[in-house]
Amino acid sequence: MYRNDGFRELERQECLRLLAKATVGRIVHTRQALPAVLPVNFGLDTDGSVLLRTSAASELVRAIDGTVVAFEVDDVDAVAHTGWSVVVTGPASVVTDPAERERLARTGPHSWVPWPDEVFVRIGPELVTGRELVGRPSACA
Amino acid sequence: MYRNDGFRELERQECLRLLAKATVGRIVHTRQALPAVLPVNFGLDTDGSVLLRTSAASELVRAIDGTVVAFEVDDVDAVAHTGWSVVVTGPASVVTDPAERERLARTGPHSWVPWPDEVFVRIGPELVTGRELVGRPSACA
Repeated sequence: MYRNDGFRELERQECLRLLAKATVGRIVHTRQALPAVLPVNFGLDTDGSVLLRTSAASELVRAIDGTVVAFEVDDVDAVAHTGWSVVVTGPASVVTDPAERERLARTGPHSWVPWPDEVFVRIGPELVTGRELVGRPSACA
Repeated sequence: MYRNDGFRELERQECLRLLAKATVGRIVHTRQALPAVLPVNFGLDTDGSVLLRTSAASELVRAIDGTVVAFEVDDVDAVAHTGWSVVVTGPASVVTDPAERERLARTGPHSWVPWPDEVFVRIGPELVTGRELVGRPSACA
């Protein structure tokens, strides 16, 4: 969250409420020492963790497991100059606990196709920030 | 761009064509040693550079000037499981050349409000990658 840029900051609970309405966000991480970003579908766990369900062999999992990532969701109306963005920053890790995997297989996000080697990745909600672009059309940039 | 994740890779020209249709994207960078991401409105220069127009005093400008950033645009239909994403990775720098600033003031992106201390930031298109999510609904994650 940047201050002094003319946005209204959102409280954590407001951010989580907005996250819960979305199904697609963007994983921001580092790949080969460069900033990288990838859209993914996701689910939100009861504690505010972001959950991904994907292939264990995917390059994304190899890139982010054990690292700190940012996960961003937004909804910006470029005509009205309104909208919001929310960022969850925290450690990404593959879920290895069998009971937790079993729970997420029932309640977690759906993958857009079944992966034979699917895993769940959890992003801990250590930092949850958001900004709303309302009544101040400078919103972006 | 991740290979082997079931996406169709897009050619550079196709990526630039998609970028030219968009008005809002996301700046991916590092802030206080953490991954950071911020939606911004933008323009595309004739050479494929991404152009921002914002306040010289903004924290975003201070965070990215002189660094390598990623700039992402996407359009994903979470119901149809289709869409695309494009990422421009390259050096971000405040435009300091007076003639270039004058040109961009005429032809560059519009700011959503006038900043008294506005500057243009250029992101060089060193790496332009994209992926299309079509016919393979695993698209995300």
